[in-house]
Amino acid sequence: MDIGLIGLGKMGGNMRTRMRDAGLTVVGYDRNPELSDVDSLEALVDALPSPKVVWLMVPAGDPTRSTIADLKELLGEGDLVVDGGNSKYTDDAINAASLAEKGIGFVDCGVSGGVWGLTNGYALMYGGAEADVAKVMPAFEALKPADTTDGLVHCGTTPGAGHFAKMVHNGIEYAMMQAYAEGWELLDKVDIVDNVPEIFASWRTGTVVRSWLLDLLVDQLRADEHLDQLKGYADDSGEGRWTVEAAIENAVPMPAISASLFARFVSRQEDDVAMKAIAAMRNGFGGHAVKKG
Amino acid sequence: MDIGLIGLGKMGGNMRTRMRDAGLTVVGYDRNPELSDVDSLEALVDALPSPKVVWLMVPAGDPTRSTIADLKELLGEGDLVVDGGNSKYTDDAINAASLAEKGIGFVDCGVSGGVWGLTNGYALMYGGAEADVAKVMPAFEALKPADTTDGLVHCGTTPGAGHFAKMVHNGIEYAMMQAYAEGWELLDKVDIVDNVPEIFASWRTGTVVRSWLLDLLVDQLRADEHLDQLKGYADDSGEGRWTVEAAIENAVPMPAISASLFARFVSRQEDDVAMKAIAAMRNGFGGHAVKKG
Amino acid sequence: MDIGLIGLGKMGGNMRTRMRDAGLTVVGYDRNPELSDVDSLEALVDALPSPKVVWLMVPAGDPTRSTIADLKELLGEGDLVVDGGNSKYTDDAINAASLAEKGIGFVDCGVSGGVWGLTNGYALMYGGAEADVAKVMPAFEALKPADTTDGLVHCGTTPGAGHFAKMVHNGIEYAMMQAYAEGWELLDKVDIVDNVPEIFASWRTGTVVRSWLLDLLVDQLRADEHLDQLKGYADDSGEGRWTVEAAIENAVPMPAISASLFARFVSRQEDDVAMKAIAAMRNGFGGHAVKKG
Amino acid sequence: MDIGLIGLGKMGGNMRTRMRDAGLTVVGYDRNPELSDVDSLEALVDALPSPKVVWLMVPAGDPTRSTIADLKELLGEGDLVVDGGNSKYTDDAINAASLAEKGIGFVDCGVSGGVWGLTNGYALMYGGAEADVAKVMPAFEALKPADTTDGLVHCGTTPGAGHFAKMVHNGIEYAMMQAYAEGWELLDKVDIVDNVPEIFASWRTGTVVRSWLLDLLVDQLRADEHLDQLKGYADDSGEGRWTVEAAIENAVPMPAISASLFARFVSRQEDDVAMKAIAAMRNGFGGHAVKKG
Repeated sequence: MDIGLIGLGKMGGNMRTRMRDAGLTVVGYDRNPELSDVDSLEALVDALPSPKVVWLMVPAGDPTRSTIADLKELLGEGDLVVDGGNSKYTDDAINAASLAEKGIGFVDCGVSGGVWGLTNGYALMYGGAEADVAKVMPAFEALKPADTTDGLVHCGTTPGAGHFAKMVHNGIEYAMMQAYAEGWELLDKVDIVDNVPEIFASWRTGTVVRSWLLDLLVDQLRADEHLDQLKGYADDSGEGRWTVEAAIENAVPMPAISASLFARFVSRQEDDVAMKAIAAMRNGFGGHAVKKG
Repeated sequence: MDIGLIGLGKMGGNMRTRMRDAGLTVVGYDRNPELSDVDSLEALVDALPSPKVVWLMVPAGDPTRSTIADLKELLGEGDLVVDGGNSKYTDDAINAASLAEKGIGFVDCGVSGGVWGLTNGYALMYGGAEADVAKVMPAFEALKPADTTDGLVHCGTTPGAGHFAKMVHNGIEYAMMQAYAEGWELLDKVDIVDNVPEIFASWRTGTVVRSWLLDLLVDQLRADEHLDQLKGYADDSGEGRWTVEAAIENAVPMPAISASLFARFVSRQEDDVAMKAIAAMRNGFGGHAVKKG
Repeated sequence: MDIGLIGLGKMGGNMRTRMRDAGLTVVGYDRNPELSDVDSLEALVDALPSPKVVWLMVPAGDPTRSTIADLKELLGEGDLVVDGGNSKYTDDAINAASLAEKGIGFVDCGVSGGVWGLTNGYALMYGGAEADVAKVMPAFEALKPADTTDGLVHCGTTPGAGHFAKMVHNGIEYAMMQAYAEGWELLDKVDIVDNVPEIFASWRTGTVVRSWLLDLLVDQLRADEHLDQLKGYADDSGEGRWTVEAAIENAVPMPAISASLFARFVSRQEDDVAMKAIAAMRNGFGGHAVKKG
Repeated sequence: MDIGLIGLGKMGGNMRTRMRDAGLTVVGYDRNPELSDVDSLEALVDALPSPKVVWLMVPAGDPTRSTIADLKELLGEGDLVVDGGNSKYTDDAINAASLAEKGIGFVDCGVSGGVWGLTNGYALMYGGAEADVAKVMPAFEALKPADTTDGLVHCGTTPGAGHFAKMVHNGIEYAMMQAYAEGWELLDKVDIVDNVPEIFASWRTGTVVRSWLLDLLVDQLRADEHLDQLKGYADDSGEGRWTVEAAIENAVPMPAISASLFARFVSRQEDDVAMKAIAAMRNGFGGHAVKKG
């Protein structure tokens, strides 16, 4: 199979490698000429046989939208665009409808795997018409983990089904990480237990909480027992926020995932903003507030 | 009525004044001789006519326990001890049982009012036998707000009923303050609204969120629009914690009050501890973690 | 002042009465001819002197949008539309821009007061240009509570400023109500306190938690001590959801307000949906799950 | 090694089998004579060579306390009691001190594994003096999963260290389960995705959320896609509550774990109690409340 791949950063670059290792012919384009196989989107499209399949690994939002607008000019009836970036699921319906005006198919695909994907394979969650999915299936097969039927799922025929599933995956991930983090904070603080890294390590076999995230945490704790080298600061990437928004829109209670999201927000505040208002009220009724230095 | 009052700090001192203004004879004792009317607990007890009524405004825990132990030696059949401090409700049953061994009555009393109590009166929530409550009623009447039947409630005959009600009052207070704080943070952050102090001020009449806490917050916001002078830091006093513990013990869901308590905990951390574990896991799967300077 | 008022339901009808009582000339229109003063929007517009001021009390979303589209046809340069409904703040910019194409001004206004507004006045939070606000000020003065400068606030000149402030007001309201509800559930469940309605009643004077919502709750508890007549079920109206969404969009932590929103969602589920998945996992590791009858 | 095992229910019975399969001589006692190897505690103790090691798998609280009191009479200097039940960590210090009066050692041990433990081995988290731990090590080795150094950890020398670690393990488990449950509820509710069981199945390889709990959930979803056969109801076992209580005592924020605990509480209420108070207030300000049939 021939495939065009737009966006060759850490993620896209590794995916190109994995697809080539599986025997696919990949034409990669990136704005950075040192990473790119071709000089332009036009050259990428020209290099592909019809029906052309072009996979985007471009930042969500405007970059993805404008790249799709460009591809709409360059591609035609029967060609296919795959959005493998972190687009919001609501963007997919818009992009699919726009491309459909020229008979161009669209598949949205959430990709999980991070820096481990090159070696272990990527988990892929995709949405779109069966016929469109079939066109890109060799790439899916190349990217997914080997020796398993897991890691690959057609989430629905509605555009956005794949990104929706990936989004919820990330929401779940937030709360799982928060679960370990809360437990670790308590264990690390109390005097009654020693040896917290080895407690976590022991949990990797035979317990209810064993998971890949636990494995990762153990490696980090063994290298830095109290995580002294790390700042208590976490970004969030969009999917967590969208998960809670989708929950609210659908009247689905989501207390743990939202708590995990809010904990990240707080971690990025230099001074705790809401607590200033608490301090103000406490000042009002009893002179408790702590003034700034 | 004659009453002994032990503990003449900010709270106890004001209560002595309010009771004297109402015509009661108050003998006050404090470890600080400058505040104290008498030299010793013995002198305080000696100065009271029988049946003697002694009111404690002493820090909860060991100081209250040891003072009650001392009073058990000095008082006798028919006398009464009132614990007006912030004792945990579970202490009251123990203290009541101990005093009962010598026929000394016990009333627990939660006191709300802070620095405003001297002028506006204190709200009192008390527990104990009817006969014991009757002995201290003139003091209750002197302390409570004037011109209302509110501010005074017999919460139950079981020792601890008063402190339990006061504890829940404080738990509710935590979540109310958190509610305003969250709303304020959002309003203060967005560009779409100006004039946030006046928005809060406008809410004091005709809205669903009008309250005394709102009044206090308005005063603070008018003096310091963005609360720049305050640190985003809030202590917690025991009652909030005990409320959530009692909820857990009774299988009562308490998501908002517990969230408010936890927000205070976070505000006191220099670096966000749990978020270090999140950063560690993010480091493990994708190199996202932020290292310390 | 002459004013057109569209939408004469419970809220709009009372507002017409209050404005008329204040001496305004109100022309009301409602799809229900029994409530309406005129037969049509056209007749309403015709009845007003220029510059014409038309106030909408119409359901948010499509009804408001289509009414504004109709008014755009009927009004002209210098006229003014006031949206006093519960529109989402993001709608206001769209509506304002559309009306501005014909030189028609726009003011958005959040209205609080419910069934009490007719007697006590309504709290009004509005956004828009100073000149537009000036045109509708006599109506604001008529509607607001008497004898106070509270109840009326110009939240900003950006369209949506008023609805944004009202939205946050409602978010705060959700968490305040949740605070009392959690405290009440605990007090009502434990044996240590009797007399829970009177505990709440006592809090109305001298305590930190005194508020109008507390007053309302006391009335209800005195009529039905354990609230046996009520179903544990609460709708939510949009503003609570939008508040949390706006918080997420602005990276503002909102744990208590979101918890309050989610608690309402759960209350409307016949069977607890998420807990079915918990039951499934518990079934998987230990046979704990409860099967349906 | 010879070991006495008290409590031969589902858990204890399987542990006896696994220890015997590993070549240990196990004398089991249960109040149910059909399960028991001996007629009495005395017979069990008599059957063991010195130093005697007795392992308890008895319900936490009074049953464990009274069994330990009985064993204190029967055992002597150099013998050892292992509490492998779900005791609260604070009980361990009391039990250890009591047994120490007669020179009897004590090890507390949290056991994870459920019905899978017989085949896969149990994860063991234990606390106590090195010398005491050494006495029971052959049993630990027999019970733990084979072919790994995981599954076994000495959490500290303070009595309760093992139960504390196990308790936190369970707290983490609560929030992990809640994370999946919230994600599942959203995916199951929206129309945009089909095939939710296969989405979860696909996550088992290559994703960040892969875990043993996920594996269990997939099996259940494949058997009952919408979990229609299960009631949305979950008990909680003590450890989740104690984890949050320990967090509160140590000022550790625990928003996600506490949310998970509270979600279970709500699931067990026939009518949503707190929401009755919300309904009451809504009734007070706007006539919104839903009355009971």
